[in-house]
This record gives sequence, structure tokens and C-alpha cells, in this order.
Amino acid sequence: VSAPKTSEFARIAGIERLLGGGRAAKSRAVELGIGDDAAVLRLDGRAVWTVDAQVEGVHFLRRWLSLEDIGYRSFQAAASDLAAMGAHPICALSSLALPARFTDAELSSLVRGQSEAARQCRCPVVGGNLSRASELSLTTTLLGRVETPLLRSAARAGDELWLVGDVGSSGLGLHALVHRSRKDRNISACIARWRRPRARIAEGERLVGRAHAAIDLSDGLAGDAGHIARASRVRLVLVAELIESALASELVAAANRLGLSALELALHAGEDYALLCAGPAELRPRFARPVGHVEQGAGVWLESCGRRKKLTGSFDHFSK
Amino acid sequence: VSAPKTSEFARIAGIERLLGGGRAAKSRAVELGIGDDAAVLRLDGRAVWTVDAQVEGVHFLRRWLSLEDIGYRSFQAAASDLAAMGAHPICALSSLALPARFTDAELSSLVRGQSEAARQCRCPVVGGNLSRASELSLTTTLLGRVETPLLRSAARAGDELWLVGDVGSSGLGLHALVHRSRKDRNISACIARWRRPRARIAEGERLVGRAHAAIDLSDGLAGDAGHIARASRVRLVLVAELIESALASELVAAANRLGLSALELALHAGEDYALLCAGPAELRPRFARPVGHVEQGAGVWLESCGRRKKLTGSFDHFSK
Repeated sequence: VSAPKTSEFARIAGIERLLGGGRAAKSRAVELGIGDDAAVLRLDGRAVWTVDAQVEGVHFLRRWLSLEDIGYRSFQAAASDLAAMGAHPICALSSLALPARFTDAELSSLVRGQSEAARQCRCPVVGGNLSRASELSLTTTLLGRVETPLLRSAARAGDELWLVGDVGSSGLGLHALVHRSRKDRNISACIARWRRPRARIAEGERLVGRAHAAIDLSDGLAGDAGHIARASRVRLVLVAELIESALASELVAAANRLGLSALELALHAGEDYALLCAGPAELRPRFARPVGHVEQGAGVWLESCGRRKKLTGSFDHFSK
Repeated sequence: VSAPKTSEFARIAGIERLLGGGRAAKSRAVELGIGDDAAVLRLDGRAVWTVDAQVEGVHFLRRWLSLEDIGYRSFQAAASDLAAMGAHPICALSSLALPARFTDAELSSLVRGQSEAARQCRCPVVGGNLSRASELSLTTTLLGRVETPLLRSAARAGDELWLVGDVGSSGLGLHALVHRSRKDRNISACIARWRRPRARIAEGERLVGRAHAAIDLSDGLAGDAGHIARASRVRLVLVAELIESALASELVAAANRLGLSALELALHAGEDYALLCAGPAELRPRFARPVGHVEQGAGVWLESCGRRKKLTGSFDHFSK
């Protein structure tokens, strides 16, 4: 039995209260937020703009996530695109598609999760859209500011490859949920990473002027490295030993426990929203760990003990 | 049997070709379009920003619309929010959720419709997102430029109410499809209006400096007038005789033929994307027709032969 649902008008007012409360993110660029046909902003200089959608049954299942988690991670996933450009968030719009049976209490949980992520990213939600649909989905669009964006196409032969943030933990967390693994502290930490990923906004901003190119890892190192290789027309060489030394200790321990390869998870499992960057070795910041290098050529290769193999394929929502 | 589907990567490349072709809309503000984590823009001054979603089974049925129509009208519906702010379009992002069975040919039709609307609105699509879903949906976000936006909250007692564009035709067109009415020239014209609505971009821009307030009519005159009344804390009085004299001749003839009230359609049927504005009578442009006035008070009233009744309710996707 679902709780009573209020009108679309009242729902929007309720969302506005949740998003505009005392601790909510604020932005000086926002002149008018929720309530008119469009938000009104004052923007100057170079902006980056992204949109990302998370759909129930495709990107998440409610079995393993609270509605707050779903709101939180959908916002972080979208914000991660700004991090990958080195941009400072300005503000966001949120378009929600809700099943007919979705209650006001459920909507509040979803929006509280979005609001928490918006606060962490210092990126207020200034408007959006509500519609009905057969399955829950969240489409988030963000504007950010950056004078010199980090492009996928700017990697150069001779660059070092850097990893910023952890990769693989999220994939292990999901694996543990799917296979109902018995949890220990490390496995639980990986599950928490999958439930609450964090866009690397601050690090992204600090990479501007250091890295040439960047991408956020939504599909694992191998697939996302391929995007840089194609866009920059270069070869990316990932070094297994470097990746392994860069992995989080919780991931290594949890993978050991579950009989999985932490390296394989880092290469092929997604949704960590770490950043992979290419830049001159001498400019690598302390928070970035070296995981390979860029050469003339094409494709993504994995080097291990001095031998190389070609890595191919990225996660594709449309292939079987 | 569905045609072969290419990878997500190839699909995005195909979309880019359709959106970036010779006759495609261009914008000087766009420094980098499709292909990176985010689009890169150069923006200066005041911007307005909106997002709108159209979901299969809620906003449209494929029985009555081609995929080109669906792409076209979803873009125009989103662009209409810019028109209602008096804004000049800058560019758009498109987030598409596609059923697993959706073929490349179907995707091309959908994007061709979006591209045609983008060209008419002079608003290039510079990026977006593809995901799978159980039902087709299109979420479009647009940026526009305007120094003095037309707000819902700026109507003043003493203002005249203006209608820009036609209202009611779209609703009649949908009625005729639902009831399988026999078509004549006027009914067909209304169906064409429903299939291919047009955002009133040029008129919106010319209303800046003349109108105080504006809204686009997605839910009919009565409901959308209510939004201005609430936001501006005024009473809107719609005059039946003025509305009737402002209606398109094709609507009047088609309503006659089908035994419907053209006035009722104008008040309560939506998706025409005309504009309702409030402004000083002496500043009314020639393309705007007077349909009532603004008073102190609250609510939306319909005046006819000197008598008034209160109009209530707007279409609500969540109420039954």
C-alpha cells in the first residue's frame, strides 16, 4: 500500500524545500532557481556542460541501494564528468522520471540523496523536471567552469598515465552483493564505495595546468583508457605492477578473500569514478599515482613483467 | 525482426554525423561538442537553463507519431521553455533512453527529428547521453541567453494578457486521433499542429522589453495562467469572447465539425506551446492577441458576457 501522493505542484515545492535548506549548496552564479520556466544564471568565461542518466534495472537495482544512495550516486556520476574536465561545479538541473506508485516519502529520500551529493560537490540543484515513467530514472545535467579543460584528445606520446582515486573497489562491492558474499570489513568498505562513489572534483581542479588529458573511470581502466587512445591518436600502455601498487589495500584484501583478481577488477569493472590522466611525469601531483605511459601508436596495452598484451572493449550498454 | 545494432560508441558517432551535418544549427558559443566528458562553451552574461523529458506512454504513443515527430516535438517542447523566458537559444544536450530492441534505423529517425527542430530553433545539440531503458524517453536540456528574462512572477495588476501563437489546435488534433475521427483539411491541420508544435522563440525574444511576464502553454490556458497568478500573486481574468476571437480558424472549423468546444480546448488542452504573456496594453506587439487582463487578487477567472467563473486545475501527470 502506497502512501498518499500529492500533486505535481506540491511535489515540486517539497523538492525545493529539500534542495534549498540551510546546509544546501549555494552558488553566486544562480540568480533564479526552481519555479519558473527555466533557471536564470550569470555566467562568464568558459563553461563545460554534461548530462548523465541512471535508469532502474540498467544502472541500479533497488534491491541493493536505498533511494538516498540512488539519488546520491546518480548526482556523483554526473558530477564526475565535470571532474574529468578539471571544472569547478556551478549548478545542476535534475530531471526525475517516477513510477506511478512512487510515494512522497520515497521521493523525499531520493532528493535527500541528491541534495547530500550536491552539497559535497558544492553544486546546487537549481531546477529540473518531474515526469511519470514505468521505471525510476534520474537524469542530471551540470554546468561547470574551467578556463583550460582537460580533454580526452590532449594526451601526448611521452606522457605518464596517472590514476587519481581508487579503481576496482566499486566493482568488487557489486560482485559481493550479486553473489551474496559473506562480508568482512574490507568487503563492506568496497560495497560502501559502490553505493556512495565520489566525484573527484577537487583533484580534477588541481590537475589543470599539470595533466594534458583526463577521463573519469565509469567502465574500468581498460575501456576508458581506450577513449583517450582513440581521441588522442596515441597508444596507452598500462603497467600491471604499477596498477597493483596503486590499488587500495581494502580492495586487495577483499579480492584475496573472494578469490578474485584485483587487477582484473581495476581493468574491467566500473563505477569508481576515479580519474585517469595523461601528463608530464615531472608535473604529477602527490595525490596521483603512476600507472603507465603514452606512446606513439594506437590502442590500449597491458604490460606485465616486460611482456605486453592488447586490451580491448569497454562496457557497452547495448551489446550482449 | 530488428536490424543489427552497432555498439554504443558507433551509435554516438552516427548521432554526431546526423547532428553535425551541413545544414545543422551552429553556435559561436560552442568550442567543443560531442565526444568528450562534457561540451565546452564560452558564455558571457545572463543565461537561462531548462530541462524537459518526454516519456513513451506518458507524453507520446508511437501509434500516432513517427520517430521523427517524437524527436522533433520533444526538442520543441524543451525549447519552448526558453521562448517563455524571452531567451535566444545557445545550444542543447540530449539524453536518450532507448529500449533494447531499438534499431540503428529507428535511432537515426529519432535524431533526424531532433536535428530538424534544432535547426529551426538555431540551437545545436552539442552532446548528450545514451542509455538503455524499458521505454523510450528523451530528456533535452537547453541553454539560452537573455539579459532581462520574462518571469512568471512579474505580472502586475493592470497588465493586459496576450496570447502568442495558437492554442487548442493541438488538443483537437490529439482528440481526433484518439477517437479516429474522419479527417478533413482543418482536422488534419490540427493533427499536424499536435505532431509538430513550434517553440515561439523569435516571438519570445521580441517580447523582452514589452511583456512583464510570460509562460508557455503546455497544459492549456487555464492551468498555465494559474502558474502566473500564483507566482505574481495576482488574479488573471481570461475573457471568453477575446479568446474566441483569437482562435485559429482551422480550430474553430474543426471543433464545429467534431461537436467540440474550441474554447474548452483552448482552456484545458495542452501541447500547443503558445505563450501567455502579461504586459502593458500600449506595448502589445502586433503578433500578440489580447485575451484578458490582470487584477489584484488571486486565481484564474473566466469572464463571459460580463459574468465570471473561477477556473481551476492544471493537467497533472500524477493525479488521476
